[in-house]
Order: sequence, then C-alpha cells, then structure tokens
Amino acid sequence: MSYSDDTVRLLEAAGATEGSMVVLETGGRSYRGRLMPHHEFSGPDIVILKMKSGYNVGIKVDSGSKLKVEESPAEPAHREADVEPKKGLPTISLIGTGGTIASYVDYRTGAVHPALSTSDMVNAVPEIRDIANIRAKVLFSIFSENMGPEHWKGMAECIRDEIASGADAVIIPHGTDTMGYTAAALSFMLQGISKPVVLVGAQRSSDRPSSDASTNLMACARFCTEAKKAGVFVIMHDTSGDDSFAVHLGTRVRKMHTSRRDAFRSINATPVAHIDAKGKIDMLSDARDVSDEPVIARTDMEDGVLLLQYFPGMDPETFRPLIMGSKGVVFAGSGLGHVNSSFVPMLREACAKGVVVAMTSQCLNGRVNMNVYDTGRDLLAAGVVPLLDMLPETAYIKLRWVLANTSSPEEGRTMMATPLAGEMGDRREF
Amino acid sequence: MSYSDDTVRLLEAAGATEGSMVVLETGGRSYRGRLMPHHEFSGPDIVILKMKSGYNVGIKVDSGSKLKVEESPAEPAHREADVEPKKGLPTISLIGTGGTIASYVDYRTGAVHPALSTSDMVNAVPEIRDIANIRAKVLFSIFSENMGPEHWKGMAECIRDEIASGADAVIIPHGTDTMGYTAAALSFMLQGISKPVVLVGAQRSSDRPSSDASTNLMACARFCTEAKKAGVFVIMHDTSGDDSFAVHLGTRVRKMHTSRRDAFRSINATPVAHIDAKGKIDMLSDARDVSDEPVIARTDMEDGVLLLQYFPGMDPETFRPLIMGSKGVVFAGSGLGHVNSSFVPMLREACAKGVVVAMTSQCLNGRVNMNVYDTGRDLLAAGVVPLLDMLPETAYIKLRWVLANTSSPEEGRTMMATPLAGEMGDRREF
Repeated sequence: MSYSDDTVRLLEAAGATEGSMVVLETGGRSYRGRLMPHHEFSGPDIVILKMKSGYNVGIKVDSGSKLKVEESPAEPAHREADVEPKKGLPTISLIGTGGTIASYVDYRTGAVHPALSTSDMVNAVPEIRDIANIRAKVLFSIFSENMGPEHWKGMAECIRDEIASGADAVIIPHGTDTMGYTAAALSFMLQGISKPVVLVGAQRSSDRPSSDASTNLMACARFCTEAKKAGVFVIMHDTSGDDSFAVHLGTRVRKMHTSRRDAFRSINATPVAHIDAKGKIDMLSDARDVSDEPVIARTDMEDGVLLLQYFPGMDPETFRPLIMGSKGVVFAGSGLGHVNSSFVPMLREACAKGVVVAMTSQCLNGRVNMNVYDTGRDLLAAGVVPLLDMLPETAYIKLRWVLANTSSPEEGRTMMATPLAGEMGDRREF
Repeated sequence: MSYSDDTVRLLEAAGATEGSMVVLETGGRSYRGRLMPHHEFSGPDIVILKMKSGYNVGIKVDSGSKLKVEESPAEPAHREADVEPKKGLPTISLIGTGGTIASYVDYRTGAVHPALSTSDMVNAVPEIRDIANIRAKVLFSIFSENMGPEHWKGMAECIRDEIASGADAVIIPHGTDTMGYTAAALSFMLQGISKPVVLVGAQRSSDRPSSDASTNLMACARFCTEAKKAGVFVIMHDTSGDDSFAVHLGTRVRKMHTSRRDAFRSINATPVAHIDAKGKIDMLSDARDVSDEPVIARTDMEDGVLLLQYFPGMDPETFRPLIMGSKGVVFAGSGLGHVNSSFVPMLREACAKGVVVAMTSQCLNGRVNMNVYDTGRDLLAAGVVPLLDMLPETAYIKLRWVLANTSSPEEGRTMMATPLAGEMGDRREF
C-alpha cells in the first residue's frame, strides 16, 4: 500500500522527503520528527515520524493537516571502502549471515536500509576500529528460520578458513530465531576451537529506538579482544537495558522471549561471562584459553533425525512411521524424562532396529532422571539414552552430528551420553 | 535387588526392622537414623537411614559393621474412617488421580507407602479439617505422563457431579508432569465454572525432607475457602522455600523445572494470587467471583491433533503425512512465529484441505507476531492462525477442544483466535 494522492500532495507541497525534520499539525495537535519511509502496512493517509524519543509514530493526515519542513535530510554518511589495518591490533573476522542485526539504519535520516553489508555494520559502530582490525564479509543473507545444516557447514568452514588466514576471532551476526541451534551446531563442528567465535543478533530492528545491534556488536568485539577465551559463544543483552551483556556458551543458550532484548538465557548453566556498560568483563564460569592450535571443522550432519515434544494424547501409532524411519529421535519428554507408557514397546523396537532415541525434558530447566519412576525405568530398559541437563535443541543438533561421526548406534548412544562441548553436566563456576 | 545374606543377618541380629531408630557403626564412623525400606537400586550391602536432618543416607555395611536398635518403629497412626461433617464449614471435594503427591509417608517411621487414599492425604494435614469438610475419593491412580483425554473427561464429569451434589470447591492432587495440560483441558471443558477447581502436585516425593505435599494441600484449602474465586487453577510453591505459594490460571501455567518445588510458573501472565506462610491471600490478577451457577462440562476432545516444535532441518516431506492426515496442528515456531519457508506450500495445502494450523512460539515468553517478517506474512496468507501469547501446550489442548465443538475449520480458526478461558491476551492485574 502506498500514500494516497492527497498525502503525496501534502508531502510534495512542503518539500518533505524521507529523513526531513518536519512539523505536522493535524487534529489540533502538533508533531515534530523525522519523516520515515512509508510502511507497507500503514494506511494511505498515515505519515510515520520518528519522534525525539526515538519512537516511530503513525499519524493520520487529512485535508486540514499542515506540514512544514524544518531541516532537510542529512547527507548519507561517507562509507569507508577499505580501511588500512592498524598495526598491533587483533584481527576480527565479521561474517554476515542475515537477520535483524544486518538491517542498517542511517542514524541521521532515521531511514532503514535492509543493507546486509557487514562494512555497513562496522561503520555504524566506528569505535570498534579502535580495538580491532575488522575483516568483513557476507556469507549469507537469510532469515534465521531458513538456516539449516548446509548453512552451519558453510559457517564452520568459513570460520576455519578465516582463522587459518590470521583472524584472532570471528563474530557472526545472525538472525535470533535459530541462533541457539546454530551456536550448538558450530560447537560440535568446531570442538576444541582455539579462538573465540561469537554469534550475535539484535532483538529490535535497527529502525527502533536504541536498537541493540550496535551495542551487542561492540560487546562482542570487547570480549573477542580482551577475554582471551576460546569457544563458541552467543553474546546478547543480559537485561532489558543497554548496559549489560551476557556471554553464553553455545551449547547452553536458548531464546526464551519472542521480543525482549535479553531473550537469550543460559539454561542449566551460569553464563560464561558478564560485560558491563564500560566494557568490563567478569568471567563467571569455565572457558578455555585461546591458543594457536589449528581449527578442525567436522561438518557432517546426519539427516533423518527428529526433535519431538511429548504431549498427552500423542499417539504412538501416528508417530511410528517417522520414528521407525529415522536414524535418531530426541524427545522433549515430560518432567524427569517421560512419555506415555504406550510408547515403550515401539521405542524398544526402534532402539533394537538401531534408531538412537534420547530423552531430554520439556521443562528445559533441571535434569532428566529416569530412575525415579516406573515409566522412566521402562524407557531406560528399552534403550532410551537419558541426557541429564542437556537442552532438547542442543541434543537434536548433537545427535545429528554424533550419528554422522560414529559407525554404530551403540557408539552413538555412548557419545550422546558423553559431554563433548560443555553441553551437559555441571560446569565449573568462578 | 535385595539385601545380601550378610546384611540380612546384621539387621536380624539387632532386631532392626523398617522404621527402627538405629545406631550404625561402620568404617570408623557412627550414624543414627531410622531404617528405611531397601531401595531396588541400592546395592545389596547398602543400608538406608533417614537422618535427623530428614535426608536419606545410603551406608555401605561390611563384616566389621555394628548395628544397635535404640527404638522400635512407632505404631502406624490411627486412620480415621468417616469424619462427621462440621456444621458451617464449606465442603471441599478431594479427587485423587495419582502422582507423587499421592504417595504417603508415615512420619513416625519414615517409611513410604505408595498408598493413594485421599483420606490418607487429608490425615497427613489434620488442620485442613478445621477450615473445611473434606469429601475424599480416588478417581484414578496413575502417573501423570499416562494422563490423556479420557482422564480429562473423567475429571471434568466428576467435578461437575461433585459441585452438583454440594461441593463448594474441588481439589485434585495430580502428578506434576502433565498437570499443566490437564489444567488447560479442564479450563476449556468447564468454561465459566462457578467454583474453585484447584490442581495440586508435589515435586518432592513424600519420603524426602520437607515434602511439599502437605503444605501445598493446605494452601489449596485456604484458597478454596477464603478467596471466593471461581475457575481452574494450579497451586504450587512460589519459591524453593516452604513459605510462599502461587495460584496460577489453568491456561497460563507450565512446568519449568524437572525437580524444583517452584517448578510451576505463570507464563505471559501474572499469577492469580499469592499465598504466604500464614495463609494470607493476595489477589494479583483477575479472577471471577464464585456463584451458584450450575456447572456445564463439555468434555469432547477431537483426535488427530498434533503439537510440533519447529527445528532447523525439519523436513516438510517427512512431516507431510502427519500434517495432511491431521485435523489440526499447533506449531511451536521459532521467534515471533516462524517455520522454514519450505513449509509454506504444504501448510497452504493443509489449510485449504481444512486442517486448522495454528502458530505459537517455542520461546514460550512473549507474543507471536507474524506481520514483522516475510515468512510470517507468508504463513498468515497460507491460513495459519497466530495465537498471540498462548502457550504451545495450552494451544494444543484448546485446538482439540475447539475442533470437537465447532462444525467447520473456519469456525475453528475463529475460535482459536478468540480468548475462551483467559488463555491469550492481556489479563487485568491488581
């Protein structure tokens, strides 16, 4: 939907273009703000202004409305092309994959550009160049709900190559929807990685007031250059404010809110570190020190692995073809790790056939313990592998990776029950 | 596994039986506690004592161990049979269904009885008889992972009958694993119910120190007799201590920890009320007043409804037979309500065929908003119903109920998007 003819006339008569600072008088009120691009969902007579507060307000105009331009849009910022590397600074490779964080706002005009250039991202946070030389590239430009195994493989190989060619750290801006799954996938593919690999997203698109894109990115750069810790991490806001960031281990993090800036939470683990507004890093739990070991990327992922949440009334016969036809199934069972006992015979059959069936809890917090009640014991006897405090999503990723890297279901079961990347069991806290 | 012959001899020589207070000297240490029943998972030479702290300790005995009985087990408590109702007190119907809360501990001997008599439960909390006349019955005695639609139907009919025959409130002790699902089912089956219906469980089995079974039950009785609020609620501990309880709305509650006593949390809603250690009730959000309206139980539930969590790498073709063969599907999508865009054509086909497809978020917290990104808009255009802030589990239950109570998929979609039992949208807070 575009502007109505009347609205176009109102804007043109005043000489208002996107980014103009305008005063709009309508319905007995006066509004002052920057003219924002027309939104495809706003009505034909709605003009959107970015107010001084930073909020965008949609205002209905009519034949009585008056518009005056106070200030023309600022010229677009100079975009640096290639920046000369500074001697003595560490090198961070920034690998763009898409998502909200990759949308670009011109802060002078308020206009949003869906530009996905990672250079643009760096230019929005110029102070990042004071602490690191940035090598920026775009690997993908996709919404994170469309991420899958082929993208994880691409990222892992790109990270390996960037580190092999001298990067001291890698930052991957990523859509938040599936960032937890990608973090887990990279954690298994890049086990024992010797440098920091940080996934980062934004919960607020860059046209919203105080978008978290820039602050999150700067926190990543600080952690990458100062903490000297190796591993796959997710860094996002720790509170709904601007002044606090959490560093999560890639196998322990889950998106726990659709929209809050502090949506990402470490589950069953203390975050690896906390970063305050001044960039001060507090280590909270165990992480390996950086080293110069070469990076090995084992990127194979088995197909035919399922993640299923148990629910009352779930019919074993309905799910039989899927489960019997799969290589492996992770259940998010109820409570301590249960499913309806009517599933036991079929799961026994599946395990005997070589399907690896593993159990996590849909409670998310706490540990699976299948020794407490009869159903749990029956499932254990059937061959179901209990996964302690592993997240269902991490377990699904791990099972795909394990089955691609083992030669028998028995070996697969053993590896599922063995911590490989901090994904299960107690972690050392400081 | 049972005791070894040597251990049996040690116990018999001392005259120790279950519940005896004993002093055991072994390995240079001395232990004093009540002899607990032998656990099937403890070794043949392990003796379990309940210490003064309340904790059970397993102690390995050998040929050098010495055992002395200090005190014989106490006589079992007198179990009251029928208690004469007291005039002027409200009547609470207690309907047992099984679960941890229904396991009985004899506090004098420390022995655990898997007795499921609701009278036993009441007798463990004698002060409950000071505030209400209790009518206790056992409806089922099953683990909650085995609960399903037939049990929800049985409970709803029993509640209706109990209230019709004079009960002022109903308390349902229930296993915690699927208590949230049952609470949602009863909320839709008993819409507009005029009395309090409270589900309650225990996270610690009664043989553990300070089991929450009794304290939870007493909090329920207080809420039922004092708050004068109608609806389906879950009452459990609000903290890991003993002194605080939360009253949750049946459609907004989820088990969020495998073992903590405060595992049940209201999601996207303030709890209905808080109850402190002294039984003081603070109303925190909206609930209807009790009345004498008759209870209508609409207990039909459609079969062939699925709850599916989206995960990266989920293959639409693998799930096609299930989805196309179903009456309805609730997705726990990623983020604001997304699945991989490769699902769009199949979901469009399913919707056109009359399958009701609804979207919630696996983030659990926050609202689905499918207008923000392309994939969401494509899903809306395909006919997928966005469910705002409804829990995936509640949405699954609601969809089963809605499809059994509507005559067309279109009507079903409309009802899914309409709040029926406080399950979606903002609730009034006090």
